[in-house]
Amino acid sequence: MGFEGVKALTFDVFGTVVDWRTSIIEEGEVWGRERGLEVDWVGFADAWRAGYGPAMKRVNEGELPWTNIDGLHRMILEEIIGEFGIEMEEGEQAEWNRVWHRLKPWGDSLAGIERLRKKYIVASLSNGNVALLTNMAKNAGFAWDCVLSAELAGEYKPHTAVYEKAATLLGLETAEVMMVAAHGQDLAGARRAGMKTAFVRRATEYGPEQVNDLTAPEWVDLAAGDFLELADKLGC
Amino acid sequence: MGFEGVKALTFDVFGTVVDWRTSIIEEGEVWGRERGLEVDWVGFADAWRAGYGPAMKRVNEGELPWTNIDGLHRMILEEIIGEFGIEMEEGEQAEWNRVWHRLKPWGDSLAGIERLRKKYIVASLSNGNVALLTNMAKNAGFAWDCVLSAELAGEYKPHTAVYEKAATLLGLETAEVMMVAAHGQDLAGARRAGMKTAFVRRATEYGPEQVNDLTAPEWVDLAAGDFLELADKLGC
Repeated sequence: MGFEGVKALTFDVFGTVVDWRTSIIEEGEVWGRERGLEVDWVGFADAWRAGYGPAMKRVNEGELPWTNIDGLHRMILEEIIGEFGIEMEEGEQAEWNRVWHRLKPWGDSLAGIERLRKKYIVASLSNGNVALLTNMAKNAGFAWDCVLSAELAGEYKPHTAVYEKAATLLGLETAEVMMVAAHGQDLAGARRAGMKTAFVRRATEYGPEQVNDLTAPEWVDLAAGDFLELADKLGC
Repeated sequence: MGFEGVKALTFDVFGTVVDWRTSIIEEGEVWGRERGLEVDWVGFADAWRAGYGPAMKRVNEGELPWTNIDGLHRMILEEIIGEFGIEMEEGEQAEWNRVWHRLKPWGDSLAGIERLRKKYIVASLSNGNVALLTNMAKNAGFAWDCVLSAELAGEYKPHTAVYEKAATLLGLETAEVMMVAAHGQDLAGARRAGMKTAFVRRATEYGPEQVNDLTAPEWVDLAAGDFLELADKLGC
């Protein structure tokens, strides 16, 4: 399969390593219950996430100056709280925005990363900013060998500059790096930059009705049902 | 003492976390013995390190374009091998240059970092490049919460931009970060940028005749004999 030259695995994080949707819904339910509020937290989580792609596109197209994900998440939050009838003070908004720093991993993520890191350099390569990724890993109880982020390239995935910058910082050629993601669009960007690609299926990232990214694009180098199967297939 | 606001510790690495001098001398002695060569490896290690400050200064003053430490180490290596009468082929030079990725920690470093990370975000903040720092930590068997490097600022310490960039990437104010280093010059730069400072004494970094950095500058926020004492003083 030609993975002998791969020295590092870079991981998409939102949806691939962590289950953002369940994490946000659960925090919302607790927060709402404490305040006696009835809120559609499922809709809220989905709306927050839905604002993310268009916001990054505005940055990549130069319509917005560079704004990190903490900044974009906050912009979107301010837009949607009105829609969902939620009142949040300034300090509560700041605290809520940090929910993305506290997202919980899928059940197989930590054990899978631990196995994979014995053989490979393991690094995040997320559109999340460095602080968010650092806090998330620490909170969830694991560590990357290196926290890499689109923030270090000043562009968002799937811009090829992000993958190229990651390889440069690791002192590697892009062909020596394998991108791991649950999203075909991300893997397509990595492939354009010359990386190897591994698709991991996260069939409920968007809930039980998910229709996208249920199957691996046919051109990926490797496909797995979770990180443990990925470790098996990579001989870890 | 006013450390309540400190959320992250950033560590100088060469000399502070790892004993570059002994590591290089030991590799040199093994390499020379295998080839039946008589080389002054102590002088070689010191000469390699001595070239480092002037080379970074040339970058910071714009005389050289941005060159990472792997690149600067290689330039210096090519200069000194002649002086020390060492013949090295291209591939051997590349392999030797990676000795900086394999430097060994001081005896207290790993245990100290492990204690400190329970309470603080721990990150490197070295002039070493990201790949070097990542490989070094992996080789030595520990992980930073986040690998930060002068490479991410495009300037070398003690330029204040390096400390400011580190705080920004951690999502913190410089006053929320404490720089840990065995070198007054590094801590002075951190202080100018607004960071808190901790001096750790490494009295044999430059060998038994060391004359510099034997005592903490009087203005540091904290001084310790090693990382374990630092952990004690920070209540970890």
